[in-house]
Amino acid sequence: MKIAVLGTGMVGRGFATKLTSLGHEVTIGTRNVETTQTSKVGDATFTEWLAASGGIGLRTYRDASADADLVLNATAGVHSLEALESIGDEVLGGKVLLDLAIPLDLSNGMPPTLTTANSDSLGEQIQRAFPSARVVKSLHTMYFEVMLDPSRIPGEHDVFVAGNDEDAKEVVRGLLAEFGWPAKSIIDLGDITTARATEMYSRLFFALYGQLRTFDFNIHVVRAAA
Amino acid sequence: MKIAVLGTGMVGRGFATKLTSLGHEVTIGTRNVETTQTSKVGDATFTEWLAASGGIGLRTYRDASADADLVLNATAGVHSLEALESIGDEVLGGKVLLDLAIPLDLSNGMPPTLTTANSDSLGEQIQRAFPSARVVKSLHTMYFEVMLDPSRIPGEHDVFVAGNDEDAKEVVRGLLAEFGWPAKSIIDLGDITTARATEMYSRLFFALYGQLRTFDFNIHVVRAAA
Repeated sequence: MKIAVLGTGMVGRGFATKLTSLGHEVTIGTRNVETTQTSKVGDATFTEWLAASGGIGLRTYRDASADADLVLNATAGVHSLEALESIGDEVLGGKVLLDLAIPLDLSNGMPPTLTTANSDSLGEQIQRAFPSARVVKSLHTMYFEVMLDPSRIPGEHDVFVAGNDEDAKEVVRGLLAEFGWPAKSIIDLGDITTARATEMYSRLFFALYGQLRTFDFNIHVVRAAA
Repeated sequence: MKIAVLGTGMVGRGFATKLTSLGHEVTIGTRNVETTQTSKVGDATFTEWLAASGGIGLRTYRDASADADLVLNATAGVHSLEALESIGDEVLGGKVLLDLAIPLDLSNGMPPTLTTANSDSLGEQIQRAFPSARVVKSLHTMYFEVMLDPSRIPGEHDVFVAGNDEDAKEVVRGLLAEFGWPAKSIIDLGDITTARATEMYSRLFFALYGQLRTFDFNIHVVRAAA
């Protein structure tokens, strides 16, 4: 697939690298290409990091998304709507928009609160703002390295998907399978309103991080035998 | 222990019955004793249900709590503060207050929203309102039958505790062990502010219920080997 990864941070770069290694054609989207090119990734510039990345492109949010089959939102939750606004509903229309973002307010430190919760969610806000996009909320209930490599955690553990478009969820299920997620570990929560459930779970994620002092954990939904 | 179970509903009765069978001296607390006595439990009156219960008492919230070692809040979250107000900080002072309640707003149907979330929680509100009580938030991340009998779910799954008083959490751990919870399945999340985490998790609980169509599930926190 042609995939636009929105966001130049650790999560965006991690997804771009993994998706490229899986054979997808990846372009990273950013607000300002020139600023990103000269920004640092460790000791290298972003341009040097791109050159060593095996073919990842860099364009504006809008240009990266224009001919993408799937747009992956890996921007910080508080900036996601603005980033998507620069792309617009007409460009996002019909595309699968895989939303990883959590609306974290880190202005008061850890653990973060949410800028929206309970009676709304970022996933719903995005779907409302871009009604032609096929928004799927997934993966954001764990650290990004676990998203991309579930085998970091032993045994069974689960990932959730939420969205209004069944075909779009099927596309995301396919991508999750490429990352190594077994079909039985992918739990469909229902429509995009269930993004509230997984976004609000983030508070428990951070509480668990506070105690376990590692990001290498995830949850498994354990059921009684039917 | 002498235990006051606040709340006459399914959860309160379930805990009262289980705790009695474990040898504790249980009194159910209610707002109005006479109204409760004539209320129905299935086809029986509450008085008939009590008579068959093996010695469970029924008194007002305040009288039930007066000589209790542990007060268990099994009232509906939206009524909890009012119920505890009728007892008062002077009676609750020094006692372990095990809070099971979730501040569910069911006025718009299922799934419920929360009357407080994100920057506060019912657990914190209770601890602030009754500063002398030793509030421990636990157990409310699953259906009450699972709380009381974790063996309903096969394999490992977890229960959380949150609270400011380490000794009070130790008392609750002991009670959880009596219900059948292995020590390794009891996860201490930290102080009472982490009640936000487990109360906000309720949205995911209800989303999972919506899909699984059973209450017989729980989550297990799966960690990478240290």
